[in-house]
Amino acid sequence: MTVTYSSKVANATFFGFHRLLLKWRGSIYKLLYREFIVFAVLYTAISLVYRLLLTGAQKRYFEKLSIYCDRYAEQIPVTFVLGFYVTLVVNRWWNQFVNLPWPDRLMFLISSSVHGSDQHGRLLRRTLMRYVNLTSLLIFRSVSTAVYKRFPTIDHVVEAGFMTADERKLFDHLKSPHLKYWVPFIWFGNLATKARNEGRIRDSVDLQSLMTEMNRYRSWCSLLFGYDWVGIPLVYTQVVTLAVYTFFFACLIGRQFLDPTKGYAGHDLDLYIPVFTLLQFFFYAGWLKVAEQLINPFGEDDDDFETNWCIDRNLQVSLLAVDEMHMSLPKMKKDIYWD
Amino acid sequence: MTVTYSSKVANATFFGFHRLLLKWRGSIYKLLYREFIVFAVLYTAISLVYRLLLTGAQKRYFEKLSIYCDRYAEQIPVTFVLGFYVTLVVNRWWNQFVNLPWPDRLMFLISSSVHGSDQHGRLLRRTLMRYVNLTSLLIFRSVSTAVYKRFPTIDHVVEAGFMTADERKLFDHLKSPHLKYWVPFIWFGNLATKARNEGRIRDSVDLQSLMTEMNRYRSWCSLLFGYDWVGIPLVYTQVVTLAVYTFFFACLIGRQFLDPTKGYAGHDLDLYIPVFTLLQFFFYAGWLKVAEQLINPFGEDDDDFETNWCIDRNLQVSLLAVDEMHMSLPKMKKDIYWD
Amino acid sequence: MTVTYSSKVANATFFGFHRLLLKWRGSIYKLLYREFIVFAVLYTAISLVYRLLLTGAQKRYFEKLSIYCDRYAEQIPVTFVLGFYVTLVVNRWWNQFVNLPWPDRLMFLISSSVHGSDQHGRLLRRTLMRYVNLTSLLIFRSVSTAVYKRFPTIDHVVEAGFMTADERKLFDHLKSPHLKYWVPFIWFGNLATKARNEGRIRDSVDLQSLMTEMNRYRSWCSLLFGYDWVGIPLVYTQVVTLAVYTFFFACLIGRQFLDPTKGYAGHDLDLYIPVFTLLQFFFYAGWLKVAEQLINPFGEDDDDFETNWCIDRNLQVSLLAVDEMHMSLPKMKKDIYWD
Amino acid sequence: MTVTYSSKVANATFFGFHRLLLKWRGSIYKLLYREFIVFAVLYTAISLVYRLLLTGAQKRYFEKLSIYCDRYAEQIPVTFVLGFYVTLVVNRWWNQFVNLPWPDRLMFLISSSVHGSDQHGRLLRRTLMRYVNLTSLLIFRSVSTAVYKRFPTIDHVVEAGFMTADERKLFDHLKSPHLKYWVPFIWFGNLATKARNEGRIRDSVDLQSLMTEMNRYRSWCSLLFGYDWVGIPLVYTQVVTLAVYTFFFACLIGRQFLDPTKGYAGHDLDLYIPVFTLLQFFFYAGWLKVAEQLINPFGEDDDDFETNWCIDRNLQVSLLAVDEMHMSLPKMKKDIYWD
Amino acid sequence: MTVTYSSKVANATFFGFHRLLLKWRGSIYKLLYREFIVFAVLYTAISLVYRLLLTGAQKRYFEKLSIYCDRYAEQIPVTFVLGFYVTLVVNRWWNQFVNLPWPDRLMFLISSSVHGSDQHGRLLRRTLMRYVNLTSLLIFRSVSTAVYKRFPTIDHVVEAGFMTADERKLFDHLKSPHLKYWVPFIWFGNLATKARNEGRIRDSVDLQSLMTEMNRYRSWCSLLFGYDWVGIPLVYTQVVTLAVYTFFFACLIGRQFLDPTKGYAGHDLDLYIPVFTLLQFFFYAGWLKVAEQLINPFGEDDDDFETNWCIDRNLQVSLLAVDEMHMSLPKMKKDIYWD
Repeated sequence: MTVTYSSKVANATFFGFHRLLLKWRGSIYKLLYREFIVFAVLYTAISLVYRLLLTGAQKRYFEKLSIYCDRYAEQIPVTFVLGFYVTLVVNRWWNQFVNLPWPDRLMFLISSSVHGSDQHGRLLRRTLMRYVNLTSLLIFRSVSTAVYKRFPTIDHVVEAGFMTADERKLFDHLKSPHLKYWVPFIWFGNLATKARNEGRIRDSVDLQSLMTEMNRYRSWCSLLFGYDWVGIPLVYTQVVTLAVYTFFFACLIGRQFLDPTKGYAGHDLDLYIPVFTLLQFFFYAGWLKVAEQLINPFGEDDDDFETNWCIDRNLQVSLLAVDEMHMSLPKMKKDIYWD
Repeated sequence: MTVTYSSKVANATFFGFHRLLLKWRGSIYKLLYREFIVFAVLYTAISLVYRLLLTGAQKRYFEKLSIYCDRYAEQIPVTFVLGFYVTLVVNRWWNQFVNLPWPDRLMFLISSSVHGSDQHGRLLRRTLMRYVNLTSLLIFRSVSTAVYKRFPTIDHVVEAGFMTADERKLFDHLKSPHLKYWVPFIWFGNLATKARNEGRIRDSVDLQSLMTEMNRYRSWCSLLFGYDWVGIPLVYTQVVTLAVYTFFFACLIGRQFLDPTKGYAGHDLDLYIPVFTLLQFFFYAGWLKVAEQLINPFGEDDDDFETNWCIDRNLQVSLLAVDEMHMSLPKMKKDIYWD
Repeated sequence: MTVTYSSKVANATFFGFHRLLLKWRGSIYKLLYREFIVFAVLYTAISLVYRLLLTGAQKRYFEKLSIYCDRYAEQIPVTFVLGFYVTLVVNRWWNQFVNLPWPDRLMFLISSSVHGSDQHGRLLRRTLMRYVNLTSLLIFRSVSTAVYKRFPTIDHVVEAGFMTADERKLFDHLKSPHLKYWVPFIWFGNLATKARNEGRIRDSVDLQSLMTEMNRYRSWCSLLFGYDWVGIPLVYTQVVTLAVYTFFFACLIGRQFLDPTKGYAGHDLDLYIPVFTLLQFFFYAGWLKVAEQLINPFGEDDDDFETNWCIDRNLQVSLLAVDEMHMSLPKMKKDIYWD
Repeated sequence: MTVTYSSKVANATFFGFHRLLLKWRGSIYKLLYREFIVFAVLYTAISLVYRLLLTGAQKRYFEKLSIYCDRYAEQIPVTFVLGFYVTLVVNRWWNQFVNLPWPDRLMFLISSSVHGSDQHGRLLRRTLMRYVNLTSLLIFRSVSTAVYKRFPTIDHVVEAGFMTADERKLFDHLKSPHLKYWVPFIWFGNLATKARNEGRIRDSVDLQSLMTEMNRYRSWCSLLFGYDWVGIPLVYTQVVTLAVYTFFFACLIGRQFLDPTKGYAGHDLDLYIPVFTLLQFFFYAGWLKVAEQLINPFGEDDDDFETNWCIDRNLQVSLLAVDEMHMSLPKMKKDIYWD
Repeated sequence: MTVTYSSKVANATFFGFHRLLLKWRGSIYKLLYREFIVFAVLYTAISLVYRLLLTGAQKRYFEKLSIYCDRYAEQIPVTFVLGFYVTLVVNRWWNQFVNLPWPDRLMFLISSSVHGSDQHGRLLRRTLMRYVNLTSLLIFRSVSTAVYKRFPTIDHVVEAGFMTADERKLFDHLKSPHLKYWVPFIWFGNLATKARNEGRIRDSVDLQSLMTEMNRYRSWCSLLFGYDWVGIPLVYTQVVTLAVYTFFFACLIGRQFLDPTKGYAGHDLDLYIPVFTLLQFFFYAGWLKVAEQLINPFGEDDDDFETNWCIDRNLQVSLLAVDEMHMSLPKMKKDIYWD
């Protein structure tokens, strides 16, 4: 379920964003608390070893090691790399959202261009609409783990009413080593052409208008598929992850409070709890979590797209629009500004 | 109300932008003065405690703490994170502006393609236009708090003349668990098809031209809805907010003027008022406020889009264009460059 | 007048860009010399006060203040903020250029699709073309100070031949509290429809082609208007300006040459003229000037768009194209590569 | 073969990305292990020379050199340059993916607009489709080394069935010093026009619809060609490579562990293995490898596009769609939500 | 001539990019060797003066000056400014490439939509095609120095066969103070309309399809012109150039090796040759050269677009396509996958 908080930030108010810091669902805390605990435990363990177990000489050695780690921790350009990487991930994520296939444009056209209120007309419009929904369902099955869980086999697709048994037979019968999600669109084109031959679609202008819209729908589908198929190169993700993990590894040792009496620069205070390092952990690990959440928005994270909901909405709404609402019109009345 | 200052910066002049620093509406001062007061009060309080209440040993401890905080304040990459985040927010904000639905393209087409100056023709054009305005109103109600306040129920929509009582009945009658803002567009398509059958719209070319334009309008509407529905992931906003707040928290302690006689590096001057820290506060908090203002541009901030004005303008202008101005033409006369 | 220098940089040559450093029109020197003088005078004044007027203790205090200022000057992230801000401004500026309305696409269509070489045909084409030019003129009047100066009232528009007296009467007669720049497009649509009814435009395909092109022109117009109406949020501009001004204010004190005999770190040389600080001034203030120049490209800066020239060019060329050149064709002859 | 890992990151989980660190195919380790070994060997060699071979004075000199190198290594802005460069490369790479030519849009149109189930009709559709596939194959041969290896001569293209012997003769017969990949599209246009004259394509609307789609396909092809022809300027790539190589060269000397007893700042610990430098190597060299992999996505890297697979898929699917599936339709039945 | 190296980087291999470092054409060495020599000579001169000519006191003063320069050299944010600027330049350069006008889309349409294999038909198609090529030639003459050198007057255009003598007379005869590159497009429109009236173009759908494509071609032409006319603001280029030049000026003095015996921090080694400074020179100056090369891609640099080649290719190919190949079709045969 997408976490919507825009109504909470409609106006810029006094410390406007602080309210967002207190949310749990989809929040940085929910995403990070496990990693945070691990980090804190490790930090504490090392701290205890240093304070209680090590002998004097070992302590001296550890202190040098800590300073060495701290110096390099600052050289790791985590911010910069995360900035570029997250920008890339966020752009891809948004493009995927913008390319979610919605059948609305097609349903307006089908409702107004495919004529006939008799049963054959209704069947025609419903079937066309169903083919459209079927295609996006087939795509979503490849792309989204949530949808795949719901429709693990084509049987489930048939059962859910997206495909009839006849269609399934024809579909299975096609010999092709490649994905067949485009098949319902061929049916769509054939059916529309047939409808035109029967005069249900009036002329080529109406027909091509439908075909153009269908192709637009197909492009959305195939773009979603493309985003899933060709992700951000693994190397890039590994580079970023390595940078962040290395940074925190270096922090575990390098940000220990060293014995203030030894007079190391910047180590004249022992706070026991490394407040700023923990905040940095939240900060950088949170930024990386943004990427983890968005890199595949078709999972089951709090912030992922609700594809199963989309599938239901699209079928329900589009059948309603082309069947029940076909040619239904409220009585035209003069509006209140007439004259 | 949008704050327009472009005429003030038409020419690059002597210290051209300094004039902008003296504006109040929509300015950084108006947005930040409360936070600024809180920050200043806290800073002063801590300063007074340090100077007056603490004992010698406590002072020494505080001084160490202050230096520790200062060191980490500089490590928090506020600038960088804000730069990437604000760029993202500004892009989204501008895309939302560009996708505000304006009925102008449709009204030109309706005025020129839906024929008949008799009452039925007028009714037809006005009704088509009204459906267009109704859809965007329904979207604006979901998206904008200002519009929602003005039209809290569908009753208000009917009263304002965007919907007739008949239409409302039909609208309410539709059984769907999903949002129904697309319904007027189905009516639009049906009505246009009817008009074509009656010969009021001459042929499929004219009709499809209308339908294409209507679909473009719908895409604007649904994109606005999408921007509202799927915001910038909460985690990202939290990360940025945390970074800025942490920075200022660290500054409250770390930027205190320490006793110059103790000879801490960089602390040989006691100015009482931390001019540059306060400027930094304005600077970073102001940058964050840019994001707060723009993250939802449909609120009631000084810089938010005037959606209620848009709604009124669109209805007034579009009815004027398709009714009163339909086929009205000034007498053609030779222009002054003729021959 | 736009400053065009692309022919000067056609080839990458020995120190290729140095030639650009010697230009005056549109240059950094012309834009900045006043601010530079102010900065230099203030710097000199402070320098003289420090060297000549202050007593020993005051000098010591000033030296501490100077070091304090210098330290913070380096913390102000001017580069970064300017980088993001100027990128934003440059993108907006270029989009405005790309969306300048040119009537060329429309004039080709009108010339080839609106038939009849008799006086009525000529009048038809010229009038259609004039409506197009009139709309952009109305928009430019709102957007550009230069155009507004030239056409302060609608009377001037009529006098310049963009509008006839009849049209003006009709235009003024329309009751609307909103801007009316879209009115000529309604006339355009009505006139085109009339022409089609008269058979001057052959069919709906030609007509819709014209209407589509007209709507594209309208989108350019309204986008320009949008850029003017909804600028970069004032807060953002203020934040950037504050950052740059603060930086220079800090430099005025912090970059003074302190008495080398006192042995302050980095102050063992007294050059009297702070070469690098002055270069930094040119550098940062110049970058800000880029923004100042481009934030509203419709003013009268050296680098602003020549809107008045556009208006004249568009009217002259488009009337020429649809009238004198209508159906004019050079005799077809075999080209020299025939066979 | 593209490395797809999106299903592994569908949900943001506990240390979500760490699993990615353990993959081999397409991973940073596979890409970098050779460079890493070279770097490690050189580092060790220098280390051994310093520790075992150098005399005391030589050691002192080396130590100074090492500190000098280290100081400059930190000044080389590798992160920043890599950030900008990789962003550029990634954008180009993705645009190339988005512009891969898929014949699906065309095959829907051909299947539904080119009529006739007789042999001539089948031949017509198959030939049209083949021309489309032939063009993209000709482009892929110029662009992709993998495809070129598979089809080193036009003979191979003929053998693989993309071209008939007759077509080849006509193709070879054309005198032109320029690339001829556009020739099949001329045939496509001619054949479509012929089909229209024969009534197999019903009217100009259907025909132009086909032509528009064909032109879109051509644009994809020519854009791919453009990306191959005009790469990122060599200078840019050299600048980035130089920066990274220089950095590692400086690290080889500058990151040696110097004798702790000499008391050089930051050199009071001898770990023998420079953990962080090696991590930095992985990090920066990995980032550069991202660019190396993506700068030409038509090679045979693990992450390159599978063009040969595309070619086969496109031919197989598109012939299937326009021939076997032409006008094939499942029997229309009421769906389960009927009434 | 564009420098194409994509085939060299098809696969990411062992030190994949190092091969690119050894190229000469279009390389950083070819572009920079002159500047590099100047820089090296100046550095050496200053070094010799310091080592041999200066007296003790002068040396001390120079050493202070050098340290002062070095400190400020590091403050000049060359990397950042270059990063933003080069990104801007690269984007503009690529957009110009993408908008190079190619007549292929038009030639497919003309070949298939303008009928008649007789001499008049051939003349018609060739003339239409010639007008298209003529327009882009006129644009290229304004934009590209290389093309302007080849066609310094309209006479050369006529001689090269792009324009007939009659057309030239008509062209010159037109009275307009503005550029007349759009004139051939008016002729195109008129000729196409005439062809339609004669029945050579079948209907409005075909005609408008041609006109739309022509307008697309015109947009490419005018966009190229726009990029040439309105460049990156001079101030921006000056700011960047100033920053880079200042940096190198500061380096000339600040990066001298000072007498190690004086014990200045970071100056305990005299290498005579400032390896890293020279590498930095290559690095930053090379980055600036990227901008110099790309800011006007229509010159005669190694990496500039080959406009003269384009002009020849376009004319040759487009005449071939619409004349010799009009309605030429290979005999349709069953492909090898039939059944």
